[in-house]
Formats: sequence, structure tokens, C-alpha cells
Amino acid sequence: MTSPHMRHDLLYGNIRLFAGTASPELSQEVSNYLDVPLCGRDVIEFTNENLFVRLHTSVRGQDCYIIQTTSIPVHRNLMELLIMTQTLRLDSAGRITVVVPYMCYGRSDRKDQPRVPITARLVADMIQIAGADRYITMDLHAGQIQGFFSIPGDVLSGYHIIKPYLLDMLPSMNNPVMLTADLGFAKRGRRYAEALNIPLAFIEKRRHGNRDKSEALTIIGDISHHDVILIDDEVDTGGSMAEAAMLAKDNGAENIYMVFVHPILSTNAVERLTALPVKQFITTNTIPIPPEKQALFGGRLTILTIGPLIGEVIRRANEGRSVGAMFNE
Amino acid sequence: MTSPHMRHDLLYGNIRLFAGTASPELSQEVSNYLDVPLCGRDVIEFTNENLFVRLHTSVRGQDCYIIQTTSIPVHRNLMELLIMTQTLRLDSAGRITVVVPYMCYGRSDRKDQPRVPITARLVADMIQIAGADRYITMDLHAGQIQGFFSIPGDVLSGYHIIKPYLLDMLPSMNNPVMLTADLGFAKRGRRYAEALNIPLAFIEKRRHGNRDKSEALTIIGDISHHDVILIDDEVDTGGSMAEAAMLAKDNGAENIYMVFVHPILSTNAVERLTALPVKQFITTNTIPIPPEKQALFGGRLTILTIGPLIGEVIRRANEGRSVGAMFNE
Amino acid sequence: MTSPHMRHDLLYGNIRLFAGTASPELSQEVSNYLDVPLCGRDVIEFTNENLFVRLHTSVRGQDCYIIQTTSIPVHRNLMELLIMTQTLRLDSAGRITVVVPYMCYGRSDRKDQPRVPITARLVADMIQIAGADRYITMDLHAGQIQGFFSIPGDVLSGYHIIKPYLLDMLPSMNNPVMLTADLGFAKRGRRYAEALNIPLAFIEKRRHGNRDKSEALTIIGDISHHDVILIDDEVDTGGSMAEAAMLAKDNGAENIYMVFVHPILSTNAVERLTALPVKQFITTNTIPIPPEKQALFGGRLTILTIGPLIGEVIRRANEGRSVGAMFNE
Amino acid sequence: MTSPHMRHDLLYGNIRLFAGTASPELSQEVSNYLDVPLCGRDVIEFTNENLFVRLHTSVRGQDCYIIQTTSIPVHRNLMELLIMTQTLRLDSAGRITVVVPYMCYGRSDRKDQPRVPITARLVADMIQIAGADRYITMDLHAGQIQGFFSIPGDVLSGYHIIKPYLLDMLPSMNNPVMLTADLGFAKRGRRYAEALNIPLAFIEKRRHGNRDKSEALTIIGDISHHDVILIDDEVDTGGSMAEAAMLAKDNGAENIYMVFVHPILSTNAVERLTALPVKQFITTNTIPIPPEKQALFGGRLTILTIGPLIGEVIRRANEGRSVGAMFNE
Amino acid sequence: MTSPHMRHDLLYGNIRLFAGTASPELSQEVSNYLDVPLCGRDVIEFTNENLFVRLHTSVRGQDCYIIQTTSIPVHRNLMELLIMTQTLRLDSAGRITVVVPYMCYGRSDRKDQPRVPITARLVADMIQIAGADRYITMDLHAGQIQGFFSIPGDVLSGYHIIKPYLLDMLPSMNNPVMLTADLGFAKRGRRYAEALNIPLAFIEKRRHGNRDKSEALTIIGDISHHDVILIDDEVDTGGSMAEAAMLAKDNGAENIYMVFVHPILSTNAVERLTALPVKQFITTNTIPIPPEKQALFGGRLTILTIGPLIGEVIRRANEGRSVGAMFNE
Amino acid sequence: MTSPHMRHDLLYGNIRLFAGTASPELSQEVSNYLDVPLCGRDVIEFTNENLFVRLHTSVRGQDCYIIQTTSIPVHRNLMELLIMTQTLRLDSAGRITVVVPYMCYGRSDRKDQPRVPITARLVADMIQIAGADRYITMDLHAGQIQGFFSIPGDVLSGYHIIKPYLLDMLPSMNNPVMLTADLGFAKRGRRYAEALNIPLAFIEKRRHGNRDKSEALTIIGDISHHDVILIDDEVDTGGSMAEAAMLAKDNGAENIYMVFVHPILSTNAVERLTALPVKQFITTNTIPIPPEKQALFGGRLTILTIGPLIGEVIRRANEGRSVGAMFNE
Repeated sequence: MTSPHMRHDLLYGNIRLFAGTASPELSQEVSNYLDVPLCGRDVIEFTNENLFVRLHTSVRGQDCYIIQTTSIPVHRNLMELLIMTQTLRLDSAGRITVVVPYMCYGRSDRKDQPRVPITARLVADMIQIAGADRYITMDLHAGQIQGFFSIPGDVLSGYHIIKPYLLDMLPSMNNPVMLTADLGFAKRGRRYAEALNIPLAFIEKRRHGNRDKSEALTIIGDISHHDVILIDDEVDTGGSMAEAAMLAKDNGAENIYMVFVHPILSTNAVERLTALPVKQFITTNTIPIPPEKQALFGGRLTILTIGPLIGEVIRRANEGRSVGAMFNE
Repeated sequence: MTSPHMRHDLLYGNIRLFAGTASPELSQEVSNYLDVPLCGRDVIEFTNENLFVRLHTSVRGQDCYIIQTTSIPVHRNLMELLIMTQTLRLDSAGRITVVVPYMCYGRSDRKDQPRVPITARLVADMIQIAGADRYITMDLHAGQIQGFFSIPGDVLSGYHIIKPYLLDMLPSMNNPVMLTADLGFAKRGRRYAEALNIPLAFIEKRRHGNRDKSEALTIIGDISHHDVILIDDEVDTGGSMAEAAMLAKDNGAENIYMVFVHPILSTNAVERLTALPVKQFITTNTIPIPPEKQALFGGRLTILTIGPLIGEVIRRANEGRSVGAMFNE
Repeated sequence: MTSPHMRHDLLYGNIRLFAGTASPELSQEVSNYLDVPLCGRDVIEFTNENLFVRLHTSVRGQDCYIIQTTSIPVHRNLMELLIMTQTLRLDSAGRITVVVPYMCYGRSDRKDQPRVPITARLVADMIQIAGADRYITMDLHAGQIQGFFSIPGDVLSGYHIIKPYLLDMLPSMNNPVMLTADLGFAKRGRRYAEALNIPLAFIEKRRHGNRDKSEALTIIGDISHHDVILIDDEVDTGGSMAEAAMLAKDNGAENIYMVFVHPILSTNAVERLTALPVKQFITTNTIPIPPEKQALFGGRLTILTIGPLIGEVIRRANEGRSVGAMFNE
Repeated sequence: MTSPHMRHDLLYGNIRLFAGTASPELSQEVSNYLDVPLCGRDVIEFTNENLFVRLHTSVRGQDCYIIQTTSIPVHRNLMELLIMTQTLRLDSAGRITVVVPYMCYGRSDRKDQPRVPITARLVADMIQIAGADRYITMDLHAGQIQGFFSIPGDVLSGYHIIKPYLLDMLPSMNNPVMLTADLGFAKRGRRYAEALNIPLAFIEKRRHGNRDKSEALTIIGDISHHDVILIDDEVDTGGSMAEAAMLAKDNGAENIYMVFVHPILSTNAVERLTALPVKQFITTNTIPIPPEKQALFGGRLTILTIGPLIGEVIRRANEGRSVGAMFNE
Repeated sequence: MTSPHMRHDLLYGNIRLFAGTASPELSQEVSNYLDVPLCGRDVIEFTNENLFVRLHTSVRGQDCYIIQTTSIPVHRNLMELLIMTQTLRLDSAGRITVVVPYMCYGRSDRKDQPRVPITARLVADMIQIAGADRYITMDLHAGQIQGFFSIPGDVLSGYHIIKPYLLDMLPSMNNPVMLTADLGFAKRGRRYAEALNIPLAFIEKRRHGNRDKSEALTIIGDISHHDVILIDDEVDTGGSMAEAAMLAKDNGAENIYMVFVHPILSTNAVERLTALPVKQFITTNTIPIPPEKQALFGGRLTILTIGPLIGEVIRRANEGRSVGAMFNE
Repeated sequence: MTSPHMRHDLLYGNIRLFAGTASPELSQEVSNYLDVPLCGRDVIEFTNENLFVRLHTSVRGQDCYIIQTTSIPVHRNLMELLIMTQTLRLDSAGRITVVVPYMCYGRSDRKDQPRVPITARLVADMIQIAGADRYITMDLHAGQIQGFFSIPGDVLSGYHIIKPYLLDMLPSMNNPVMLTADLGFAKRGRRYAEALNIPLAFIEKRRHGNRDKSEALTIIGDISHHDVILIDDEVDTGGSMAEAAMLAKDNGAENIYMVFVHPILSTNAVERLTALPVKQFITTNTIPIPPEKQALFGGRLTILTIGPLIGEVIRRANEGRSVGAMFNE
């Protein structure tokens, strides 16, 4: 990949990895992949909830990466990320890349009614004002969010991890069909269906009337007597996915596989999901799932790790090599 | 809408309307609606193609609106908009709102492959650096593009004009179904279908193989023996819409109505569309259609005007009144 | 204060008051003082902790004030403030002033060791990037924090409320002396002592040795047989203040009055304070103290309200009149 | 020029050359000079005129140069430059230098009447907002335009190419005098005259009266029985230069040599120029002249190439060496 | 100029005039013209030379004008201007216009050699970062400097004051010719000559050789037996003007009139000028000339005041009326 | 300090040292420490006081340091610093660090009354807008001023030079006590006292009455029969320090040692200080003291040099190594 005339290894300072408190295991995986130790730092929360960060070593001129997902507790985790970023900047870091596997507020990405915020843009502005030079993230709720940043970023996709996994499973499935639970995911669902070379169906949600809050779900496309791969980008309370799974069953689906990149799993999502007639749940570790929650799935949960993917992207970013080339695109 | 304690009419300077050269008729309609004359200005193109703008009157402290769509010739029209904006700014305008019914480069709104631009963000940056304080536009290709701006904007929708028109037509249709030609339009298609209380269907486009450039189209959902309302946000060459219409016919559609907000109609789009078995074409004047092109449709073309909509939004913006209230939302 | 040639009432739009969820009672007090109702707004917290804001009415061109303190839960309250600010900005508000009676992260205002943040600057940056045009706050931890903002602000002081209260109490005190619990408050302590025309003393805190974490406290100045007014800008856990009060007693103090502007009162502060030999606790409502906590003080707690002060400053800011003139300075 | 203690070759990434579509031959010359191949890229114009750019290889951390003149079609070429710049920036280029041999809109560099733009400043703002870190250009219409940029730039001059050429020709000329066609070029004309050690004369243009659009030309200085070197920075339609040449003849000039850096040559400029009693036309390739236009000059046209100049400046910029030293200044 | 539908007088707050210490008399003239008193302010210089500014009254929401020329002591005057600007901004001024009759560093407006500054751009940046919203100035050294600002400005010209004065004098002159002392002033000299309908001549300055520092002056054009109006934008030491006057005499000039807008008159300029065979010196009060210096001219000095011009521009800027209309352009 | 895997020496270009005219000797000391010569540059002051800078060599891509204190003449020195910074930036310097041992306007760091500036913030803004990437300074008047910058900085302290010096002297002192002359220095005074393990006392200044300008000084704490180390951050006219010394004597102090980092020594400060009963004056060379002033102290003056400290910080900044590690903190 390198030629004798290339000076890849000289472009930036050394890689410096900092783990926020929200992603300790993923940070360690990335550290292991790169064979670069995590840098020491204190993250202290005072009794008044104010956070304090102190780096154990200088980062002057170095190529720094802060790994911190913005899952629950969302605002504390976000603020910790911002404070760390400013701390590195004020210590004259050479370049700062924030690695945020799950970017919060992605669903607030446009004004679909008057007088509401576009909070995803606000988050992008905050990351930039704190001093980030670049960002790395996974499966933004909408690809357009990349345009909210004026700094460059690497927006990776669980697709590159999930697709090969599903391809491996395909022989054991019976006439599978890809079913998207949300019309906003339609184009990305098509991409998976095309890659697996299987048909596609949609669930449409519609209010019963102008003032009625209840909604009716319809399946558009044919799933009867098919195994169904039910897919979305994230699962929060699991409510929509549960409805979708039941509707699929009602419409004659055989085995159901549920796939999602970001396991938010708030409130009673785990209880709700594990009660469903779903054969397997496939997700990633963009957000850590506590062991006790994992246990509740009783073997039906598969967590694909993004650690090597993140690690490889960091290495290539540091050495000035192509990230796109990783995906043969 | 106003109370005696409100000082709506004092908030900004007087409305000053400037027409770019791309939207002369729409500008006149807005002027008529508001009963405010268009301001005099020269727009000169030198032999070296450089543009020059000169305002006939001062705009110091006034509330200025530049009406200029960014259709073909795209880059010239965009540059004219930017130069006008800077001219007003340097003349100490009180507030500058660019009114761009059709915003160019909307389809370049995210990086769906490595090493490509997000030109819609670049356009937003250019409009801001030129000095616009606000913008008004219609049906952005993706709602998220609003997040590309840090200035406030009013993103209007042809929906508010097209929905009542379709509701009026509904009784004369036979068992109509809403068909979206592009999965990216799925959620907006659902909104129309819900408002009309009719079913929804999709067209899925899929490549035949990894390296094969040809594509297969499938209709997901049932349209046989239905009248079909084929809908998208814009029509450029008309290629996709033509394929969609033929596919709909092949799948048993009865009458076909084709609806789109932005009539780009480049190259031979008009020839292609008028050859189709489409009963009626419904669009708006966000982009002017030359009379000779209109004539080719032989009465099958309906152009709904956005003039009063734009005019009313300008009035409310000037007086500090709610725009959202226009839509009972 | 106004002359016939002045056009004070025309400068900005109408006052629009928005209450964040952190300061409901103070917001109501301000609303009452101004005789301007609070604007309707929804603040929703989703199960994934993401916040959502929706304004009930348009704020186009209006002079908006968001009242939100940034006490516990600090990061949620701060984010709510920022989201509200962005929402108002995107709705074309005429001017946005954030009213933050207690500004979080004030103690992180300088780098007193290498490789730490200046989070108060980060907070200022965040407030500005969200879109605030101005800010109003009370007793910043250091006056210099005002220089962290590039937008103008009104930094008010509890001094103007507390000084007259103490002056009223002075006759009932026995030979009072002002005692500051922290050397960083020395200059402000002097200002109070000077206004009351009473002597001043300090508490000095010193580590026992280079590596020893324990600290020795000394009183510099004479307090024996004096009533002591123990003063600081804020009380968090109450630890320092408790030590100070005990030390004062050990050094012969008579009655002790404890004065502080910001009642953070985290963890078991209330229990700690109420156990002290303090005759009266005097504070303000820059941070709301829950009724059940107030009850624990058994009548020894005096809360001076800042509501009229904030209200009057808002009125003058809206009308373009002097705020400094309120204080005869 | 380099010492053993210097680390010139390590300062930036490798040179990456990108050719815009406006300067293909010049780009190739630069590539040849540097012995660095042009990077692959697609520039696609869709039917709606929107442009699309795709880089064939990653530019992460590299030292990138985009060579694109902004001649006719001006706005398309400018937009292509901006899109390329943004694309490189979003791909995390290490440094981006735009190389614009002819910068459009140079004549709109000040407000010489009320209510007009300063478009050269707008162009500078656009180049910066797109993400350029530096720029290289030739003979700005006014040197002050360099102050429109806040990024550093190398503003080169055709002087360094034209002066030696004219010095070589001088022996074959008969008592030559330098004649500037425009008073705005007076100081630069003097610089040439001084370098060649020949006298200087001016053409003054004056309106006949307040309302009369026609103009009278006068020659100030003596040119009778002199060979005349008629010089300006650019030739657009050739109108002024044609008038100047005829006036020179009328005033007794012998041979006329016409010199200009930027050959815009719009509309019928070539026809107009070739009809003149001019012995030789001397220009550069800051703007490509199509072969068929060149042919019309019938051997009287000399195009001096700027390729090696641009190439050498790029090399020195990449290696952190002085550009000024190239000119012994 | 106003119609019943215009709301000119409501656009901004009241005019607030602040006089810097560099232009006290001009400030008073402007105040008199507008019938608006100067606002009270303290400008204190401490023993460590640091300046301090305190406003006597609040400027919240008002339309403020700071009148301060940047003549000697240049840096102190400039800093005073910047501090005043920031003070007004931090006090929530509605709009701040700096009125700088003579803008320092105008001659550093481009890089005419490598590795030198463009200080005029730096000055523009400083004025903007301090918080100015607009600026008013007179006869910038180059019109392009207006493009160094991104805020709007009114760049006025002594031309409008000097031209009528010269027109009045014309009948008493004998065959007058306009002579510009510097080629950089050639175009502006032409403008005067055209307005007076008299011929034009130039002085060319040329170094004797490559390394020789001495210069030779030549007059291009005919001045023998003419009265000569010698014109430039500013006079600093008077060296160039003195040389020019002597050269004119040597070339047969009759009476000499010396005209310049900005009377810098540093070091021994007054002595040098008054020794010249010049009949009359005509200048303005963009920079105050001390009475004792004026006396040395013994009646040969005419100072045209810019007070009413500045005053009228301020009035129109405040009321949102055209400034260009003052000049019938 | 470096490991084989570290690439410290490759991070930035070579060190380039530029001396402003205000700190020639310190610059030379730094140059000697680093064994890096000062770069040639011209600093010219024209007769109109405008400054001009010209670099003798190119700084493209290099790591540049400008050493310039901002003592009297303050504004000229500051402007020279800014112009040099811009010049380096426009010459494409790789990184620019301004080294300002004494930062002017530090006492204007907050609004302690209405309608005054925060000039220290303005100075920070000016340094940034000129193009500095980093700054190095000593003992800011308040640590919070570091938060006025958004660029990183190294704020060093004379403490690291003065503490060891005082520790060496301690055995020869008689029962020493640390006395701070200003309450604003209280916390820093404590730090010295703690390091020397000696007691602490304060001087309190209080106005006699509301309208009375005269002030009463009191010593809080015990100094009778102690040697006194009187300490402050800077000495300007010496007035406060003189009062403090006399008060100390009146309160029974034995020997007095006066310590201050920044020797401004304006007006008659030297005369005033040398007349005091002070045994030794200890300061640094953040501001040069002219030899003739030094002579007046007659051996009682000790100037500790900051040259090696600044030099070492520059080396570490260039090599990307920790500065904090220099102080074992």
C-alpha cells in the first residue's frame, strides 16, 4: 500500500489514544488493535456534578484520538467529550480527532414542524467549537448530518461488519426477505437487500385520522412464508421493532432476525425484545450493553465488534492512507 | 393575529424586493401580492462573462429580499445571487433574505462514497459568506439541508399547494394510489398518501449485479387497476419518471398523474414526458418553464403558482409574525 | 429617565420570556414583575435522554429572554438552555438573551496546573455558538469570566441585594467582623466590609507539607469576641464553610452569620450546615432550594429573591436604558 | 540553498497535483516540470448543469495543489474549483493550495460608485470558505486584492517572464518607448520601462462632457518616431488596445509591440487584434488560447509559458523554501 | 426624500456621538451640524501608558458614532479607537460606526516585495474584531482597501469639497494644468482634471540604476507657461511634493497650487512646504493642524472642513437614507 | 525523555527566532540558550510613525517565535508585534508563537464598574486576528486571562525562578513573613508563603468614606519584629509598594525585601523605590531596565533572568515535549 516515495509515517505526530468514561472496553479493543496504550487521564466528577479532566502526559504536537460514545448519560458524556477536547487543544495537541461511535441527537436532524431545534447541528457546532479537527463516527441517523460539520470526518457504517455476517448466515435461512421498520431507512434497507440479493419489503405507519394519535401499520411487499431480516439503524425502547416483529408474524413470516447498529436499549427495551418471537438479535458495540442485560437475551444476542474497524481507520488517518480503500469502493 | 400591544410593523425596515434575472415572473407575482414594487437594479454581463450589479436606490437599514432561483444556467444564477447579496450588504442593508425557490446542488447532500463533495453545504456556506441573514426556499432535496445553514430560514413545501389541488381532483380519480419513484422520497410520499387517505406503493431500483450498470425496477405494493399518482420532488431529464410511468402501466395502472415540485426539465425532458401515457402533469413555478415548452404539453400541464405563498411569508417575516401559523401546524 | 426625544420603546421587539425547567419559580417572579406572561413551550425528554423543545408561538423579530439556571442536573440544564437558544435563533428571533442566574463551571476558570481545561470558557463558547446575543448572570466565580464571552452581558451581583439586608441587621449585631472563607474572595469580602464599615479577616488554608494532603487553617486578623459574618460566593458541599465556622468559634467568635449568593447545597450540605453553630444563613434564589431542604433549616434560612432585579434589568435592556444607573454607580 | 541542518523535505506531505478542466495543458506542463503525475479525478457535469467531482485516490495529509484558471466559462470554472477544494478538505487533505493563474472578477476590486459590489472580495471569501489554505495566482488586477484574502498567497507576475523576453528583443527595436493603455497600469508600466531603461508615455481617456458617453484619448509623453511597446495586464475584447494602437500610429509611432499577461480574448477580440498594425503580440498561457485562435495571428503571436514558474513555486512551497529568492529581490 | 410610507426615523436608536481625543474640533463641528451633543466619556492614560475609557451614559440599543482620526500619535490613537469600540459593544450598543477621517497605514496596502506585511488589512481586521459594525472614512490611499473590510463602510472623498473650491478659483488661474506627483494617484488626478476640464501631466520617478538609491524625476506632459495644480492624497514630510514643485518650476510652471486631502505634515514638513514657491496650499481637516503650524503658512493655507459632510452622512446613515444621493451620482 | 518510537524532532519546522525591538537582550539570551541565531528583519518607523517590517529570509513552513514584550512604548510595541505576526503569516509560516514576557493591559481584565472595557480581551483578540497560533507569556495579572485566548498558550511564572532564589536567601533572614500589597494577589502570595513555609499577612486598602478619595491601609496579620518579603506581580509607579513598605516599617517590620515579576517602573518609580528602607529589590527581565536606572539602585537590585526558561519552553514546544514536566507538577 505504500511506495518508497511515500512518506506516510511522517505526516502527523504519534497516535495518542484517550478513552472517555463511556466506552472503556471499546477503547481497550482499539488500543489492542493498534498496539498503542491508552494515555492516562483523570476524569473527576465533583459533588456539584461539574466534571474535571487532567491529562497525565503532554500531548504537544501529537495526533490525538478521544474515544467516547454519547449514549446514556447523554449530556454528561457529551460534556466530558467536549472538555477533553478543549483540554487537548489548550495543551497544544497537533491534531484532535473525536471518535464517537454513536452520535447523540441524530434524530433531531431537520425541522419537520415549525419552531423546533436541529440539535444534531448544535452538537456538531459544539464539537467544533471545543476544538476538534476531525471526527470519526458510525451510521449517522441521516448521511446528511456529515454536512453539519465543517471539519472532515470519517463516517463508517456497521454495514461493512453486518453484511459479511449476514452473508455467512444466508444459507441457513429460508427464502429470506429484508424488511425495514421505518421508511426513513428505506434506501439503506435496499442497500442490504441488494448486497444479499434478496427481496425487500417495507412497513408503513399511518395515523388513523387527523386528530387520532393511534397509528396503523401496513406491510408493503410480500413476506408470507419468508424468513424476515428486520432492520433499522438503532433500537431505543424497542417499541417500533416489537410492533414490526408482531406484524411480520401476523403476515406469515417464518423466522425473524432483528438487526440494528446502535443498541440504545433504554428503559425496558431488553424485556420487550427478549419477549418477542425473534430467533436472533444482531447488533454492534457502538454502545456498550451491560453484561447483566446481555444475559437476559439467553444466547440469542450477537454483538459484532467495531474495535478493529475503528483501530484501522485511526491507523490510516494517522499515516495519511486511504480509508475508502478498506471497503473496495 | 395582532394585538394592540404588539408592534409588528415596527420591527424591521420597509420591504425592498429585488428580482434576480432567473425568476422575473415569479418576482412580479410576489410584488403584486405584496403591493410593493420591485426595486430598480442593473444586472450586466460583460463580454468576459463577469457580472456586474448596480442598485438604483439605497437600501440602508431596509428589509431586503432577493428573489432568484438557481436553475439553468446554474452557476451564473448562483453567482448573480451572491453578488446581489454582497452589494446589498455593502450598502448597509438592514436585513437580507435570499429567496431561492429551487436550491441547486440539493442532490449532493451527503458523501455516499469516499472522496466526493457535499456541494449543498458549500452552497449554504457561499450564501452565508456573501452576507445573507436569512433564506427562504422550497422543498429541499432533503430536510436536513436546513442544518447546513447557520442562519435561519423558512423552508416551504409545495405540499401546501399541491395537497389541496389533489384533494379537489380526488373524486374524479378511480381508486387512486400514491407511487413514489425514488425510495429517498418514501417518507414524503407517505405524507401525501396519508393526507389524501389513499394507499402507498414504492418503486425499488436495483443493480443486476456487482459490476453490471443496468438496473431492474420492481413495484413494491399493489397498483393494478388503480389510478396512480406518481410523485417526486423534482424532474430533471425525466428518465426515472418515464421508467416509473411505463413500469406502472406494465403493472396494470389505469390513469397516471405525475406530480413534482421542481420542473428542471433539462435536455429532452419535455419530449420524453409528453410521449408518456400520463393524463396530467402537475408542478409549480419554482423554476420558470418557457412558454414554448409549456405548449408542447398540449393542455396536460398544470403549473401551480408559489407567488402568493412566497409573498405572504415575506410579509410575515417583515412584520415579525408566525409563518408556521399559515399551515395550521 | 426618558426624555421626549428618546425612542426607548421602539428599539427592539416585544419582550418574550421563556422559562427553562430549572428555574420555574424565579421565571414566574420575573414574569410577574414585568407583567409579561411566560411563553408556552414544550420541553420533552425522550427515553434515550435526548431533549426536545417546541415553542408554542412564533418569536420572529422579538426580544427573547430564556431564564435557566445551570445547577444540578448541570449538563441536562445546560443542554436545555442551548437547545432553546438554537430553537429561538432558527425561528428568527430578533435578539436572544440567556438569563443564567448561576453559571456552571465557574471554578474552572484558569489553568492552575498543566493539562487541565478552562471549562468556563468552553461554556461561554457553547452559549455563543448556540446563538445567544447577550447574557445576564449573577456573581461569576471570577469577574474575568465576563471576558470569556465576546457577546455583551450584564453581570449582576447579589451584593446589591445582600448589602442592604446586612445594613438593616447591623444594629442587632455585636461588634461584627467580615470573614472570608477563601482567599480568592478576599477583594469581594473587602467590598462588603467597606460598605458595612466593619473590619475584615481572612482564613488561610495551607497544606502541611509537600506530599501531605491534609490542610491547616489559620485566621489572619482579629475575630475574638466579635460577631462574624462568614461570606463566600457559593456553598457546594458546605465543607469549607463548616470548617471556617468551627475555626471561627475556636478563635472566639460570638454569633456567626453565613452569607453566600449561590446555594448549590449538593450531597449532604444541608445536614452539614444545619448542624453548625450558625445563627442565620443568608442566600438568594439563583438556584432553587427544594421546600423540604428549606424546612431542615428550621427558620434559620433567609432567601433573598433576585426576581425583581432580573426583571428590572430585562426591562431596561429591552428599552435601551441604563442598567448601571440602577446601582448609582 | 539547503543546509544539512534543514529539514525542508519533511515539512508537508507529498505534492498532489489536481488539474481542473480549465487548464489541462498548463497542468500537464507543471506536472512535467515537477516530475509528479496529475492525480486521477472525475469531473462530471450532469444534465442539470450541476457538477460532480470524485477523486481517484485518497489525499489524507498530503500537500495538494488544484490548478484551475477562471476564464470563460467563468462561473462554471470557479464553481469547479470550489467543489474540488471542498472535496479535498472533506477528504482530510493536509494542505490545499489553489493555483488560479487568472483570477476572475479582478476589475471589480473597489466601489468607484455607490451601490455596487466588490466581487473580487467575494471570490476571495468563496475560495476561503471552500477550504483553501493558500493560493497562487498571477498579476492580480490590483496588488491590493492580495489583502482581500486572509490566507497566505503567492502572487506571481508575468513580469519575470516578459522582462527577459523584451530585454532580448530590445536590440532589434528602434528607440523604443513604453506606452500604457490605462492609467491604472501606470505604476506597473513604469516598472517595465525602468527595467528596460526606456522612456514612458501614457494614454489618457476622458469623457467629452458630463453626459456624453464618447471619450477622447490623448497621449501624454512623446512617442513620435519611436517603436512602441503597448502594455496592459489583460486583453478582453481588445477594444481599448485597438484604440491605443491606432492612436499611437496617428501620433507617429513606428513598430508596435503589444504585451499583456492575461489573454482573455473574448467575443471578436482576435479578429480585432489581428487587423491592427501591430508587429508582435506577446502574452502568456495563464488562460489557454485555442489553437484555431492562435492560427489567426499568423505567426505574430508569442505565448510565453508560466508552467516552469508555477512548478518551481509549488516545489518551493512544498519544501518550505523561499519563493522570493527566485527573483533576486 | 422621504415619503409617507417610509419609516426612516425608526430604523435605529438615537445618534450617540463620541469624540476620541484625536479629533476634538472636528467632533464638535459634527455635533453642531447634527445638533446632537457629544456624549460624555473619560479617556485616561495611566503612567504605564495603558489607556482607560469610561462612558458617562449608557448606550444600550443606540446608534453610536466614534469620531477619531488615526494621525500621530498613530498607535495610541488607534488603540483608543479600538478600546472605545469594545466598550460600546460590551455596553450593548445597537450599532457602532467608527468615523476615521484619516485611516493610518493606507500605504501598506499590498505586498510589492516578498516578506512584508499588508498592514492596512491588519488595521481593518482590528477594527472589526473590536466590534465595529460600520466605518466612515475619507480618501483611502487605494480604493481597494474598502475590500479589506467585511463590514460596510462609507468611503467619502475630499473631491466633493475640493472640486467646487477649485472650480471657483479656476477663473483666476492662468491656463491651469493638473499635475500628479505620484503615478499611483494618476487615475484620481485624471478625475479632477476632467471635472475642471483642464489638461493633465505626470511626474515619473525612476532610479538611476539597479543599485543606485538616487532617483530621477521627469515630467510627462506639458506644463510650461501653465499654472500648475499639484495634487496628491496626502502630504507626510512634504519631500516628494517639494521635489515636484521645484521640478515644475524648472519646467516653466507659473503659479503653483498644492492640493492634498490629508495634512499629515510630520517632522519638518511645514518648514519645507512654506519655503516653496507655492501660491496656495489647499487641504482639509481630516487631521487637525495645530494653530502654531497653521500660522507658519502666513495666509497661504486654506483648510476646507469635512465637518458638514461627515455630519450629513451620519444623519443619513441613522435614518436609512441614501448617502450616494448627496453626490448626484 | 524521548523513546525510540517517538518522532519528536520531526513535528514542526525548524525554530525561527525573531526579536522585536522591545526585548533585544532577552532575545539574544534565548538565542544563545537555544544555539539558534536570531533571524534578520528590518523594523522601520516612518516619519508618520507607521511601522514597516521586512524579513530577511523566508519562513515558509517553519516554527516561528517572535519575542516582544509590551512595555512602554506600549502601543507601538504591541503594533510591531502584530505586524510581525501578520508578516510571518502572509509568508506562509508553519506555526507562529508570540512570546510576550509582559502582557500589557492585564489590569483591564474585568468590568468592575459599568461602561468600561475589558482591554486584556481586546489584546488577546488582536493577537489572534493577526495570526498567532500560540503564545508564551509570564505571570498574567489574573490567571483567567488565559481564557481570553482561544489559541493555546504557555503561561509561565516568575515563581519558578524567584522561589529558589528566596529559598537560598531564607537562612539569612530573621523570622520572615510574606506580605502581599494587594488583596488581588492574596492567593499567589499564599503560594509563595507555603513554598517558603513562612507566615502570611495582608495589606487592606479602604476608602475613608463614600465620597472621600483618600484611603486607609491596614495590615491584617502579624509582622512586628519580622523580616518582611513584600510581594506583588508588577511595580508601575511604585506608589502602592512605597506605601506598603512604610506601613510595614510603622508596624515594626525589620528588614524589607521587595519582590515583583514585572519591573514596569514608569515615571519616577525608581526614585521612589530607591528612597525606601528596603534591603533588596528582586525582579526579572520580563521588561528591560535601562542600565542608568539599574545604577540608581546602588547594588540593591537583583534581576533574575527568564532567558533560559523561555528558551527551554521554546525548545520543548518545537519538539512536542512536555513543558509542565519542567516544573515537576
